[in-house]
Amino acid sequence: MTQAWRCLRAIRLTATSRCFSSTAHRREIRDLADLPARVHPKVKETSNHDLLALQWPSPPRNILLVRKDDDTEVQTALLEYVNHIRSSYPDIAIVFERYVAEQVHHNFDFPVYAPLSENSNALYQEKIDLTSTLGGDGTILHAASLFATAPRVPPILSFSMGTLGFLGEWKFNEYKRAFRQVYVSGAPSPLKSTDDPDTSSASTAKPGALQTWSNIKGKSMGHTRSSRILMRNRLRIGLFHSDGHRLPHEPPFAHRDHECEDIFALNEVLLHRGALPHLANITILIGSPPHQRTLTTAIADGFLVSTPTGSTAYSLSSGGSIVHPLVNSLLLTPICPRSLSFRPLVLPANTPITLRIDGSNRGKEIEVSVDGVRRQQGLKAGMEVRVVGEEVTKPGEIGQVADVVGGVPSIVRSGGAADGEDHWVGGLNSLLKFNYPFGEDG
Amino acid sequence: MTQAWRCLRAIRLTATSRCFSSTAHRREIRDLADLPARVHPKVKETSNHDLLALQWPSPPRNILLVRKDDDTEVQTALLEYVNHIRSSYPDIAIVFERYVAEQVHHNFDFPVYAPLSENSNALYQEKIDLTSTLGGDGTILHAASLFATAPRVPPILSFSMGTLGFLGEWKFNEYKRAFRQVYVSGAPSPLKSTDDPDTSSASTAKPGALQTWSNIKGKSMGHTRSSRILMRNRLRIGLFHSDGHRLPHEPPFAHRDHECEDIFALNEVLLHRGALPHLANITILIGSPPHQRTLTTAIADGFLVSTPTGSTAYSLSSGGSIVHPLVNSLLLTPICPRSLSFRPLVLPANTPITLRIDGSNRGKEIEVSVDGVRRQQGLKAGMEVRVVGEEVTKPGEIGQVADVVGGVPSIVRSGGAADGEDHWVGGLNSLLKFNYPFGEDG
Amino acid sequence: MTQAWRCLRAIRLTATSRCFSSTAHRREIRDLADLPARVHPKVKETSNHDLLALQWPSPPRNILLVRKDDDTEVQTALLEYVNHIRSSYPDIAIVFERYVAEQVHHNFDFPVYAPLSENSNALYQEKIDLTSTLGGDGTILHAASLFATAPRVPPILSFSMGTLGFLGEWKFNEYKRAFRQVYVSGAPSPLKSTDDPDTSSASTAKPGALQTWSNIKGKSMGHTRSSRILMRNRLRIGLFHSDGHRLPHEPPFAHRDHECEDIFALNEVLLHRGALPHLANITILIGSPPHQRTLTTAIADGFLVSTPTGSTAYSLSSGGSIVHPLVNSLLLTPICPRSLSFRPLVLPANTPITLRIDGSNRGKEIEVSVDGVRRQQGLKAGMEVRVVGEEVTKPGEIGQVADVVGGVPSIVRSGGAADGEDHWVGGLNSLLKFNYPFGEDG
Amino acid sequence: MTQAWRCLRAIRLTATSRCFSSTAHRREIRDLADLPARVHPKVKETSNHDLLALQWPSPPRNILLVRKDDDTEVQTALLEYVNHIRSSYPDIAIVFERYVAEQVHHNFDFPVYAPLSENSNALYQEKIDLTSTLGGDGTILHAASLFATAPRVPPILSFSMGTLGFLGEWKFNEYKRAFRQVYVSGAPSPLKSTDDPDTSSASTAKPGALQTWSNIKGKSMGHTRSSRILMRNRLRIGLFHSDGHRLPHEPPFAHRDHECEDIFALNEVLLHRGALPHLANITILIGSPPHQRTLTTAIADGFLVSTPTGSTAYSLSSGGSIVHPLVNSLLLTPICPRSLSFRPLVLPANTPITLRIDGSNRGKEIEVSVDGVRRQQGLKAGMEVRVVGEEVTKPGEIGQVADVVGGVPSIVRSGGAADGEDHWVGGLNSLLKFNYPFGEDG
Repeated sequence: MTQAWRCLRAIRLTATSRCFSSTAHRREIRDLADLPARVHPKVKETSNHDLLALQWPSPPRNILLVRKDDDTEVQTALLEYVNHIRSSYPDIAIVFERYVAEQVHHNFDFPVYAPLSENSNALYQEKIDLTSTLGGDGTILHAASLFATAPRVPPILSFSMGTLGFLGEWKFNEYKRAFRQVYVSGAPSPLKSTDDPDTSSASTAKPGALQTWSNIKGKSMGHTRSSRILMRNRLRIGLFHSDGHRLPHEPPFAHRDHECEDIFALNEVLLHRGALPHLANITILIGSPPHQRTLTTAIADGFLVSTPTGSTAYSLSSGGSIVHPLVNSLLLTPICPRSLSFRPLVLPANTPITLRIDGSNRGKEIEVSVDGVRRQQGLKAGMEVRVVGEEVTKPGEIGQVADVVGGVPSIVRSGGAADGEDHWVGGLNSLLKFNYPFGEDG
Repeated sequence: MTQAWRCLRAIRLTATSRCFSSTAHRREIRDLADLPARVHPKVKETSNHDLLALQWPSPPRNILLVRKDDDTEVQTALLEYVNHIRSSYPDIAIVFERYVAEQVHHNFDFPVYAPLSENSNALYQEKIDLTSTLGGDGTILHAASLFATAPRVPPILSFSMGTLGFLGEWKFNEYKRAFRQVYVSGAPSPLKSTDDPDTSSASTAKPGALQTWSNIKGKSMGHTRSSRILMRNRLRIGLFHSDGHRLPHEPPFAHRDHECEDIFALNEVLLHRGALPHLANITILIGSPPHQRTLTTAIADGFLVSTPTGSTAYSLSSGGSIVHPLVNSLLLTPICPRSLSFRPLVLPANTPITLRIDGSNRGKEIEVSVDGVRRQQGLKAGMEVRVVGEEVTKPGEIGQVADVVGGVPSIVRSGGAADGEDHWVGGLNSLLKFNYPFGEDG
Repeated sequence: MTQAWRCLRAIRLTATSRCFSSTAHRREIRDLADLPARVHPKVKETSNHDLLALQWPSPPRNILLVRKDDDTEVQTALLEYVNHIRSSYPDIAIVFERYVAEQVHHNFDFPVYAPLSENSNALYQEKIDLTSTLGGDGTILHAASLFATAPRVPPILSFSMGTLGFLGEWKFNEYKRAFRQVYVSGAPSPLKSTDDPDTSSASTAKPGALQTWSNIKGKSMGHTRSSRILMRNRLRIGLFHSDGHRLPHEPPFAHRDHECEDIFALNEVLLHRGALPHLANITILIGSPPHQRTLTTAIADGFLVSTPTGSTAYSLSSGGSIVHPLVNSLLLTPICPRSLSFRPLVLPANTPITLRIDGSNRGKEIEVSVDGVRRQQGLKAGMEVRVVGEEVTKPGEIGQVADVVGGVPSIVRSGGAADGEDHWVGGLNSLLKFNYPFGEDG
Repeated sequence: MTQAWRCLRAIRLTATSRCFSSTAHRREIRDLADLPARVHPKVKETSNHDLLALQWPSPPRNILLVRKDDDTEVQTALLEYVNHIRSSYPDIAIVFERYVAEQVHHNFDFPVYAPLSENSNALYQEKIDLTSTLGGDGTILHAASLFATAPRVPPILSFSMGTLGFLGEWKFNEYKRAFRQVYVSGAPSPLKSTDDPDTSSASTAKPGALQTWSNIKGKSMGHTRSSRILMRNRLRIGLFHSDGHRLPHEPPFAHRDHECEDIFALNEVLLHRGALPHLANITILIGSPPHQRTLTTAIADGFLVSTPTGSTAYSLSSGGSIVHPLVNSLLLTPICPRSLSFRPLVLPANTPITLRIDGSNRGKEIEVSVDGVRRQQGLKAGMEVRVVGEEVTKPGEIGQVADVVGGVPSIVRSGGAADGEDHWVGGLNSLLKFNYPFGEDG
């Protein structure tokens, strides 16, 4: 994922408490909390061992739409996309982030949903079946960050307005086909008749009841093809006091019920001296006690621990190698190290890495950022960032089915010319301008 | 593994046919072909998921000793080591490479073995139970190259005279304990009594009969501990004509019976312009048909495809990242590319990579080297090098046992302070001088 | 110069206005403003075209001592050094920075001087004949920064407590010889007799009167040898509004009388995004109107323009080449650029470089730092940093003498084994750990 | 200059001794030795301190044309260009390299010249007034190599068929204006009348007599503008035995009369292991005795010493910085060093650099190449390459005139939009694809 994420907008938690009028045309915002619990999809192993097939037990109902801000083209596309979903899949509830909902709900003559209470991240985890983004890699990164405390992330379907990036985005003009394919992925084929009395009455009016695919328009879909999932591993990150106690997370990452106390990053966690003229003294340890060992103590502007997905973002700018998302690994990349001999490292994903702030930083705070969102409170001497690749359940054998636990299920573009396409190769060449030759021959 | 390999001696196939006198004290060289077939060890999954436990079904008998050349200290150590093995484990047959045997057999009053016919590599595969090296990383690399056509490589036990490197070498002064541990690894504990009539007569005099551990000296070993294996993956390499036919391998890699037509590399395969002033034009493709895709066409002095083991060798000199041997991956590293934007790549180990010589090289030959051994015949326009990480059978679950298929089973140092030691961290700091800070504060 | 500078203490301008008691033992701090105007030395071209010979028209009188803070060893050395100067060269006035004077004046039974009014930098320029530092490269950098607005910098004599760095430091135990050599550099030989009525009465009591070398102790110096000067070029830096007006300098760089409106850097000027998650968009122009041309518009964490002296500091950490201080050049080095193809550039010293903050930074402030001292007010869209190497007057032909205009005259170690020593080579090997080989052979 | 040079054709010294028929239409090749001695131009300092003005004392007569081989477009352009020169400047003698003359002389109905005896390089130095190239940077490099033993190189006027490179090439369609400007550069303005009895009879028929500009067609040139010269410094290179004696140069660099025993490189000198698997052990010394000091002993695939002109060629591929041609410096760049901490160095141009082959290379030959032309005999242990930037006479003050001694006088494009153009900036962006940003924002 490119550095686009760094343009991640600061999370807007506008504490506006205006009353939302529930007028005639129902141009209103309803609380996400009122929607039924999410439908957890499964994944099936395919013969292409790199990609999984998406399997809905019942159709997705609660769709979170995330868009790039301040972009007219994206805004126009969003309206067209939402209206299409609403008209073709009337059972689906459209969800936005609250500040987006406030900006756009007037455009629709049906209610939209947004988290109206404080703990938006926890609500997303409980309610969202599918996330769909309109924008670029930065938008996808932002969408992933809304699930930064979720061990189980809903699938993400992404549309790009411009250049297709690393993340398997679809072109926006493919949105009807793309959405249909995702919606029916894993459905019995042919789709069940609506005559089935048990399912014909399913609707959003009856929260909690499972739907079927029977009442969607354009029923005769012919052969239904599963959507293909690239499971992107994340980092599991914990912050610790020198005495071993956890540091609490700041909003928006504060957990509702403390089930899981780590947070997850799709790209990277960054330690940086920030505006300090002083360099950061960091001790890097690998392994966990009692097998923890000091790798080195280093002085630098900062350090990055990245996923392969993040290898094409900040790590790349800092001199890291480009690592394919299917290489199960972590990257440790220094930023401006005070050494001629600190080469970037690639470690197994299951290696626990600890970055400990050295005493020699004398009370200065080192900034810590997760996927480009900076923690307001920095880290002081003795504090630690502990990172490890998250574990991801894999079905294992072809045809086997498993729950999605761990990872960000990214729906990759397929169909027509895109079949067999390696999005990573495309991203290298189109986004990174990889290997532009110089000179000429003569 | 460090660049030491590049000092790999050219394979010496001295065609000397002097008669070896079979005199009194039996200071003779016998043919390796006369020894019994090798004992294939198994590996058991351990709770430390990174390392496996070595399991001999019966004691190893045929030990290949590989030493660093032209080093007096190594030579002295070799004599001490061989005499120890001979006196403590009289059933063991000592094997050398032929040119080594010719240099050293006068020192021993017992016969030693060497391949006396042409196809030495095939013989090693059929006969050798265990390889033991005295020297450095270059010596280990050379030992591995003797099995470059073998899908099943015997375990390697390495001793270092000086700095301990990446490969888990033992200090030479630990040789008695180390050899004992390897020898009994997986044996029933306590070792069976010699009273057992079926096994008491086992000896090298009866080729083919399996031995037990009963007749070794110093019987009461107390608790036997398994040796720990780090399985190092290799590259599987094939060379192809533009018409799709394979190029034959040159000695010493020619196969005996063409069972396996690929050769294996522990470190890397290199394409290089060699002495040509012209740069190499190479097209890099990934995947296999029909999903093969062009990554890029590049101009450079050369290209490397490396294993993680090779990431600390030539690839490191060329600007590649340092990749931990347990990251299941391949590195693609350019050498002096004619581009500002060719960054080294890390790909999944199961990615088929094709390097195709471009027509624009106009009949000039591009050199190809495998683990530092250069093929005499270079590659011409249209020819291809096809590379993929070899597949390695893994036991899977703790306590499960499997055959060793694929990979180089490297016995890593253990016991005492070395327990829980990460040799890779040690190698980084001692061999690479990783992260030597510059400057001072004030 | 190494990155040590980044540990530059924040400039302490304690506005304490306690009365300094003018008691018995005169352990007092007097105002630097009361000392006579400085003696401007000249330089003479030598046969070694790299180094110049220092020529005092009359002995230096006002010596500024700059020390590394919070270091007991340095503090002890300082007291010994000051007492030696005071007893051997009684006419010399000892000057400290104000906060240092407050800390140390109690140790001396004679008055010391410090700038007691606001504009300390202007005072140093007017009064200081010679600066002497005790510490490391960071201390030298700090000393140079006290003359950041001075076109004519007094010579700097540096002592190191530990590792000798790039800057020609002397070992502290050589301080007597070193100081003597500097003090008499360029004096007539043999030193004039004290019988000369015009000069015998010269003393600090008569401010403004020139002294001779006649009244120093240990008169019979034998052959006097000139001190050798390495003239280090600096950057001349101006900050500009989008409308072309200059931005005022902040303390401590505010000019007294606006004679010279640029400030000078010995190492580098840095633009950096600081704590912002956003990257900086910077347009880089070279040349001055009407021949100014856009080099590129770049996105990065930051940009450095460095002197060759600064090439071994921050620029080195950011991937820049190591440039010898006598290569008359500027380095443009990006920090974490969002491009695979931004390679560091080395430009002629007389190239005007403009770094213009792009409009796309949308009101965010980009931090600007000069030799590690950050400007409190950052730069906004449209603002520019204009940089060019300062011009330095050079005598030109062997034996010719010239005023010192431009550059920092650094007195390099000489005598004994140090003669013909290239401090730069020494610094590379001892400070940077340049070219530590990896691996071993075998 | 880009890496194009590496495609430098091997110097063709066809020993053909066919008789060249001197037939009717005079489609013959005459011996360059028969032409009059060259006219040495002078250079005048301009207000633009970077560029000099070309001053012919009398019009150039002997023009060497160098073209890119095997390129139809170039061949067509060459014929057009030669015919134009012949018709507009009938006094000019057209010179080719011998193998080119043999290929093209049939196209012209007038005689062309080529060196017909052995020592072509010496002849070029004695006879050629101006070199003009058609092709790319590689062609310019080849043209410069024809003067590799010449301390005084004639000016080079270059035309590019395609992309304009670093070397100030003109577009081919500007050839009439460009050639006219060069031809009259420094002529009195307005051009003298042909009535002048002293000059009117000057012609090629009277070898040795100086011409004037009076008999060129299109006399009324209006304002004559001087051509602008960028003086490119070269390396001065000597090869030495371990006993201090010089190694003789091989053809084509063998000197006629041993006046100057060094050879010159416009781009770089390269030491490389070539096809050897062994790395090169090289000791790098800087300075000359008695001040020579060991910088380091290094192990690598090779080492480059480059000019700034060469900084955009092989050095760039090897990780060197980009150095502007007016930075008076040398670059020392390692190729695949066996060290994490060998960063490229930039040294003053007048630094003597010695690369000494270490004894540890044990008799293996290290290849040495000058501007891409490899010496057939490599260097053995103890041998040295000694390199220093050549000294170049500079006029010094504006308006002053000096002989051209040292350097390659490169005529840079000017006029119209090209005025004030910085070719280096253009080359960076068009040839190197400098700073192509990656990613997108969203």
